[in-house]
Amino acid sequence: MSAAPVRGRAVAVGGGTGLPGVLRCLAGLGYDTSAVVTMADDGGSSGKLRAELGMLPPGDVRNCLVALADEASPLARLFQYRFPHGEGLAGHALGNLVIAALADITGSFPRAIEEAGRLLGAGGHVLPSTLADVSLHATDAVGEPVSGQARIATSDGPVAHVRLEPAAPPAYPPAAEAIREADLVVLGPGSLFTSLVPNLLVPGIAEALRETAATRVYVCNVANQRGETSGMDAADHVEALLAHGLDGALDVAVVHVADATPERPGRCLVYDDGCGRLEPVGAGREALARIESRGVRVVAADVVDADDHRRHSRHKLCRVLEGLTG
Amino acid sequence: MSAAPVRGRAVAVGGGTGLPGVLRCLAGLGYDTSAVVTMADDGGSSGKLRAELGMLPPGDVRNCLVALADEASPLARLFQYRFPHGEGLAGHALGNLVIAALADITGSFPRAIEEAGRLLGAGGHVLPSTLADVSLHATDAVGEPVSGQARIATSDGPVAHVRLEPAAPPAYPPAAEAIREADLVVLGPGSLFTSLVPNLLVPGIAEALRETAATRVYVCNVANQRGETSGMDAADHVEALLAHGLDGALDVAVVHVADATPERPGRCLVYDDGCGRLEPVGAGREALARIESRGVRVVAADVVDADDHRRHSRHKLCRVLEGLTG
Repeated sequence: MSAAPVRGRAVAVGGGTGLPGVLRCLAGLGYDTSAVVTMADDGGSSGKLRAELGMLPPGDVRNCLVALADEASPLARLFQYRFPHGEGLAGHALGNLVIAALADITGSFPRAIEEAGRLLGAGGHVLPSTLADVSLHATDAVGEPVSGQARIATSDGPVAHVRLEPAAPPAYPPAAEAIREADLVVLGPGSLFTSLVPNLLVPGIAEALRETAATRVYVCNVANQRGETSGMDAADHVEALLAHGLDGALDVAVVHVADATPERPGRCLVYDDGCGRLEPVGAGREALARIESRGVRVVAADVVDADDHRRHSRHKLCRVLEGLTG
Repeated sequence: MSAAPVRGRAVAVGGGTGLPGVLRCLAGLGYDTSAVVTMADDGGSSGKLRAELGMLPPGDVRNCLVALADEASPLARLFQYRFPHGEGLAGHALGNLVIAALADITGSFPRAIEEAGRLLGAGGHVLPSTLADVSLHATDAVGEPVSGQARIATSDGPVAHVRLEPAAPPAYPPAAEAIREADLVVLGPGSLFTSLVPNLLVPGIAEALRETAATRVYVCNVANQRGETSGMDAADHVEALLAHGLDGALDVAVVHVADATPERPGRCLVYDDGCGRLEPVGAGREALARIESRGVRVVAADVVDADDHRRHSRHKLCRVLEGLTG
């Protein structure tokens, strides 16, 4: 992973499983790369560590650090090891425990991230969007409240609106600064309301996104997430971002379009992968026109993983990102 | 920590808190250094991991690896970090969890130790005396049985005899080989019945100790451990080793002798350190003569830590070990 910033500075904003692929792409393209990650996670190993140790959630941070790690680092694989058994250990990723130990030793979550990055030989920075102890609260399409990132991500109905508690937490200054100084900002792919929007709900982050001279690119998911975005097309995804702080702060939307892309969502493919019905994000002509009408340029491309239609192909997406800034 | 074996090969045998100091001494003196450590531990973090993950106890291994670690290793301090809170995490040393993860990933406890040693830049090898899942069982002075290393170490009466279950486990071949090929073997300091003797109860280890051409040195503890060795003098310590497999396999006993050393144990000093009464190991003339009568040369020296009379001074002990083989 070259550290030579031949292309300037890039920041990937989000959380969850979509961010590491983008980070590896940007670093591989030669960008001086940073990640700005949500601190609203409360599920799994991260959620347990938040509750038991009173720390910020380390999971997304860990995945980003490993994505930026020196490929020869023997620690990267260890960081991703998850205990399969053990009372109180089962489910924990070892890297989360390392970050927890470093946070306690250094007395600072950002310093723990720096130290862990040094151990991994990470070629880039991972920055929490806020250091506040925030929780995520949603209202669904019929007005019912749902509380907690993990519960929102697995709730029944599509989400209409999310907010943080406490509201308007202060941005972590280096995260806002990285966005301000970037040449390229990539949001997503990732869970719309539970990974991307929580970053925008930090006013200092949304403000930095509005003020930066960077090209601001949203990578729309290829498939909807049941209970979070079901029934939403690509334009609905973009509208949700604009409604949650990104208004006037988005230049490009990368939308998956292929021969089989339905005009409207709902024409579900049935997958036999244990995940139930898979609903591609609608990206028909009307949806793309609605996006353009909001002043956001649409880059329509086949970016889906051929073997897993829930995800982007890292390679295809990276070629699109490369082309955007070539 | 120089790797140049200017002095030949040394092996430290034992377990517990005494071993790391000897390892650092031997490596610092220029020996190609290995540790042979007991696998009978069942207390604390090690005991929990044994019970919950079905692995061998990593605690002594971790302490030895850290003692042999490159002093610049940023991981060494992390390995020794102990979680103060957290359901199921509290009490675990992070290095134990790393070794547990490596044991699961590699499918082999010795390979996990090697990998952990590589991560730490360890200048030496740490070898379990056996890979069998052994437990320690004792009979005390009045014939009462006590089971389990941790319970034996904290039982009321002095221990008379210990045995392993299963009895006569196979030695880990590289451990026996290291002893056979050594120029110097140091046993202790350490808990007599719960850290030292468990290694001797592995027949292949006792046999290697009898057959090696190495100078075999026993470093007798400076203070007795309540419930394990109370009332025993230095000759009783030596007798216990000879009775548990070391007969004909001991050349030198390093015994702490200072002006205040009592002729017989029982003249207890009262310490205000929360540890209750401290009982120096008796090392009067009669005790030393009894040791010599068994064909073991006594090296009597002031080796106690001036600030903590329960422990050896690492520096003083190292000078004695250096003199033995100079």
